[in-house]
Amino acid sequence: MKRIAVLTSGGDAPGMNAAIRAIVRTGLDKGWEMFGVHNGYAGLISGEIMPLGARDVGGIIQKGGTMLGSARCREFETEEGRRKALTQMEQQGIGGLIVIGGNGSQTGAYELSRMGFPVVGVASTIDNDLYGSDITIGVQTAMDVALEAIDRLKVTASSHHRAFLLEVMGRKCGYLALMAGIAGGAEAIMIPEQKTDPEVVAADLRAAYDNGKAHAIIVVAEGAQNNADGMAQYFQIHRERLGFELRVTKLGHVQRGGSPGSFDRILGTQLGAAATESLEKGNKGVLMGMIKGEITATPLDVVVENKKDLDLRLLELAKVLAK
Amino acid sequence: MKRIAVLTSGGDAPGMNAAIRAIVRTGLDKGWEMFGVHNGYAGLISGEIMPLGARDVGGIIQKGGTMLGSARCREFETEEGRRKALTQMEQQGIGGLIVIGGNGSQTGAYELSRMGFPVVGVASTIDNDLYGSDITIGVQTAMDVALEAIDRLKVTASSHHRAFLLEVMGRKCGYLALMAGIAGGAEAIMIPEQKTDPEVVAADLRAAYDNGKAHAIIVVAEGAQNNADGMAQYFQIHRERLGFELRVTKLGHVQRGGSPGSFDRILGTQLGAAATESLEKGNKGVLMGMIKGEITATPLDVVVENKKDLDLRLLELAKVLAK
Amino acid sequence: MKRIAVLTSGGDAPGMNAAIRAIVRTGLDKGWEMFGVHNGYAGLISGEIMPLGARDVGGIIQKGGTMLGSARCREFETEEGRRKALTQMEQQGIGGLIVIGGNGSQTGAYELSRMGFPVVGVASTIDNDLYGSDITIGVQTAMDVALEAIDRLKVTASSHHRAFLLEVMGRKCGYLALMAGIAGGAEAIMIPEQKTDPEVVAADLRAAYDNGKAHAIIVVAEGAQNNADGMAQYFQIHRERLGFELRVTKLGHVQRGGSPGSFDRILGTQLGAAATESLEKGNKGVLMGMIKGEITATPLDVVVENKKDLDLRLLELAKVLAK
Amino acid sequence: MKRIAVLTSGGDAPGMNAAIRAIVRTGLDKGWEMFGVHNGYAGLISGEIMPLGARDVGGIIQKGGTMLGSARCREFETEEGRRKALTQMEQQGIGGLIVIGGNGSQTGAYELSRMGFPVVGVASTIDNDLYGSDITIGVQTAMDVALEAIDRLKVTASSHHRAFLLEVMGRKCGYLALMAGIAGGAEAIMIPEQKTDPEVVAADLRAAYDNGKAHAIIVVAEGAQNNADGMAQYFQIHRERLGFELRVTKLGHVQRGGSPGSFDRILGTQLGAAATESLEKGNKGVLMGMIKGEITATPLDVVVENKKDLDLRLLELAKVLAK
Repeated sequence: MKRIAVLTSGGDAPGMNAAIRAIVRTGLDKGWEMFGVHNGYAGLISGEIMPLGARDVGGIIQKGGTMLGSARCREFETEEGRRKALTQMEQQGIGGLIVIGGNGSQTGAYELSRMGFPVVGVASTIDNDLYGSDITIGVQTAMDVALEAIDRLKVTASSHHRAFLLEVMGRKCGYLALMAGIAGGAEAIMIPEQKTDPEVVAADLRAAYDNGKAHAIIVVAEGAQNNADGMAQYFQIHRERLGFELRVTKLGHVQRGGSPGSFDRILGTQLGAAATESLEKGNKGVLMGMIKGEITATPLDVVVENKKDLDLRLLELAKVLAK
Repeated sequence: MKRIAVLTSGGDAPGMNAAIRAIVRTGLDKGWEMFGVHNGYAGLISGEIMPLGARDVGGIIQKGGTMLGSARCREFETEEGRRKALTQMEQQGIGGLIVIGGNGSQTGAYELSRMGFPVVGVASTIDNDLYGSDITIGVQTAMDVALEAIDRLKVTASSHHRAFLLEVMGRKCGYLALMAGIAGGAEAIMIPEQKTDPEVVAADLRAAYDNGKAHAIIVVAEGAQNNADGMAQYFQIHRERLGFELRVTKLGHVQRGGSPGSFDRILGTQLGAAATESLEKGNKGVLMGMIKGEITATPLDVVVENKKDLDLRLLELAKVLAK
Repeated sequence: MKRIAVLTSGGDAPGMNAAIRAIVRTGLDKGWEMFGVHNGYAGLISGEIMPLGARDVGGIIQKGGTMLGSARCREFETEEGRRKALTQMEQQGIGGLIVIGGNGSQTGAYELSRMGFPVVGVASTIDNDLYGSDITIGVQTAMDVALEAIDRLKVTASSHHRAFLLEVMGRKCGYLALMAGIAGGAEAIMIPEQKTDPEVVAADLRAAYDNGKAHAIIVVAEGAQNNADGMAQYFQIHRERLGFELRVTKLGHVQRGGSPGSFDRILGTQLGAAATESLEKGNKGVLMGMIKGEITATPLDVVVENKKDLDLRLLELAKVLAK
Repeated sequence: MKRIAVLTSGGDAPGMNAAIRAIVRTGLDKGWEMFGVHNGYAGLISGEIMPLGARDVGGIIQKGGTMLGSARCREFETEEGRRKALTQMEQQGIGGLIVIGGNGSQTGAYELSRMGFPVVGVASTIDNDLYGSDITIGVQTAMDVALEAIDRLKVTASSHHRAFLLEVMGRKCGYLALMAGIAGGAEAIMIPEQKTDPEVVAADLRAAYDNGKAHAIIVVAEGAQNNADGMAQYFQIHRERLGFELRVTKLGHVQRGGSPGSFDRILGTQLGAAATESLEKGNKGVLMGMIKGEITATPLDVVVENKKDLDLRLLELAKVLAK
């Protein structure tokens, strides 16, 4: 009988639990014994590996975060750390590992795979910066949380003729800011992938104001060249350029903690089920992701060596729509 | 200068307003004059056609329903009715029409197109039964509303060891029920595309109960062979087969009225923008939809003559996951 | 050292967990040992009594339902059943009991109290039909869930000029229907406390329609003389009297399962803390409730013998506001 | 026939629209002509006074913000400004004014009242710092929005053993922070009404960590002595004292913009209806608020001269519950 373990690593994302549940239950259905590793690679090194039955993953599909916990782990970046992890798995008879996470996590998965261990990755990060999946588990829910904040800001902005600046997550990737900005009908969107001159933003908002708009929303990615604090300071000084009074909101980790929406639960479920399927077929060293609407396996070396591009045409569309 | 009109027809769907907004604003950006038709084809026949400026579609992206109103219209099914509609558009100098809606609406669009009028369709129905778009505007939000109900039923079900039967929309299509059921972790899913013997459902639930499950959720599509009322009656009689007490919830039109989530707003925005783009390029008589993650134009005759299939492998997966 | 047990009984209500948490943690703070009884009075009879530490009630305040489970129990209505319960508590050294629940539950608490056992009740039922508390734990959240459904129905109703009939919970009490109806701006509200002639409702809606209203919402209490099915049938026959097409939604237990809002969490917390305080002071045989904005102890015999009245002036106000 | 105007002033609050609707419709029911003033006292001075019919206030009860707009107005603080306002009302034949708002707004109402004009106030501010109403329109919804953020932070905090600091609104009043903190089960709450030593907070959180808590949430009122930035900086330096990594969220105006919950809609409706009732009876120069669960009129001079106290026993309870 096969023994397969699953871990979640890096930042948590809504839908990770759906993936864990699907992995455990489809694994059990194949006659395997399933295990969960606590606290990511750190727990793999220290041997926090527990058996998981069908009931253990009951009642988790609707929960944000990850029931297995997560942690960043320096030690696993060293070969010595990874050897310890392999030894732990060997001692418990674990014959395969599924790693749910984003860029850093899949780099770790790739390293384990290179050392000959059967690993399959599942694409999950709210930043959507992982090559090998057009959209990763957690993105849609994080976007909906940011969107809810935009909707609420617009309500109060309309009542007072104000401008609001909302900083959203995404690390070096502007996807979340761009899409939330489009969905929220933001008047300006600032992302790391494109330089934006504060003067231009100010002129655009001024134009919106003069055009009769009752409010203005600026969505700024945390990784943008001019972040929220910088922009707030700029507009503090150049208030007259704006037409509106400006206020700042930083959602921070609130974006991570939403209950996963249907999209992320289904994506998590499908990628999780595909991961055990892939292991069963002997197709290892790959990342399960969704490309062009289909579940796809991309070799981990390809995942690690490539960078996902952001479609900047959407930014152009956003500008047309903000008029 | 071109004059283009937009209408929404059939059942309303969350995200229709995002499409209207995108159509109007991208149209204006092309230098066109834009018009809105009230109450669908009925308004087209009676000439309820009003100019729409950029500000008229402000503050609607976050709203469910359709700002243009909708109605079913028998008269438009006759050639005489359609001639009246053409005359109305001619009198107002309208040179192109964008129709946002589902099956019936796109059949109307096709008929107009056959009569030589430039029409482009935008795929929108919460039933997801329209050929030419893997997912249509409104489906994801309707699914999230149904999912929220499932999550709440599970909470109270756990406290009382009960079974709940939730009837969801979808007309003759089981997509909404199937996906909401998977996302909600339902113990049983009943859809029109597959016969389900109540005895088998009862046995499955009994097994779940004996397996230690604290609750059971059955999701039934309104179009399933055994609908909610039928199943409730069956279990009333055969209570002992179930292990749980059974209660029924019928969400009804609550599923239509949610504020559109980010997915539907972005899909609505993209399909709306693609529709004006298509008209500009002279690519008419087509439906704008999303196929394999890409915005695609499918000829309306192909749309009308084909039926979208439901992927029944997901139903098999749902059964494995419910264990 | 004192040993105190807590149980939840009858229908679950959002906020029960907040009360359990407050009872356990304030009890522990007084130096007591705390216990939880599973599945209400049934568990008290069968001895499902477990110790509860501070961590055991962590992470529950945001959850609907009750972590202790609940059940209706016929046996406890007999003196023999109650004697068994007393014996179980005696054997475990339990010296006091806190009962969280509504009418039936507090009747049970009263009976135990009459037999000499120290009992304190905590007022909790979504029906708001319990004497001794102007508002009980769970009502506000259940109302918010019903309200959310009304808001969504209004969205789709506006798009289609339709009428919707929403049946809400409350057993023989119209409070939930009345308040949700006022908060939702319903055009008609039907409650058990007042006979309503379907003809009058039809005339009111017809007037609303003629007045230019784009939609009509009728909120019907499940205990009203003419319930949802009856009204739907009536309007099926007399469609022309309405002006609108009519659709029906039955939320059912969805109303119970919401995550408790701030009101119910704070009320649950305050009543729970007051219950241990009351036991400490030797003030037993009472129900902790909120009367005129203050936490109050009402003797259980007074609670059991009285019926809470519904303020029908609000129904008059609702009619003025619906115009 | 009487002509009565209504305005909203100061910060917008969810539920203001319910009050406007109730004022307009109950006023019309009394046979009065009703008017709305745009943009608060500024609009009163400049004469932005429009008639409001029953349909004009349709479809607003579910919306946050205020349909009448609001603005702060320096000019109204001068007697000259107020004389202009009186002249405007005289010219339009307005014989009475209803002012929906908080402290500053009711001070303005009091000044107008002293000049002999019939004014009635309606208590509305999310800060809950207004004497004459135990709870004001908007507080409960703002609390629910803050609570939702806390719930989400707890999810991600649990997955990563982190501490989160959430800054909530309330100006100089700690009510919102205190109540959201209790409802969210926060480990520490910092409010303006009580000095809190960062060292003590650090020690408490350290204790929570050592006690096995998986996360820690600190809720800080924006008006607290040590605000979010100060605390974040402190913990940056003294990281080891905490046991957890710390992250900051600033909700800002997101708290204002929620769709009003049932509590605020009903409170707004009741206070609005009571305001026209009070004017009809000639009881003017008063604030309509809710005291001990009853609708009450408090003379505006009493409102202006008194400060509402915060019940600090709840802070003590919060500490016991956080253990």
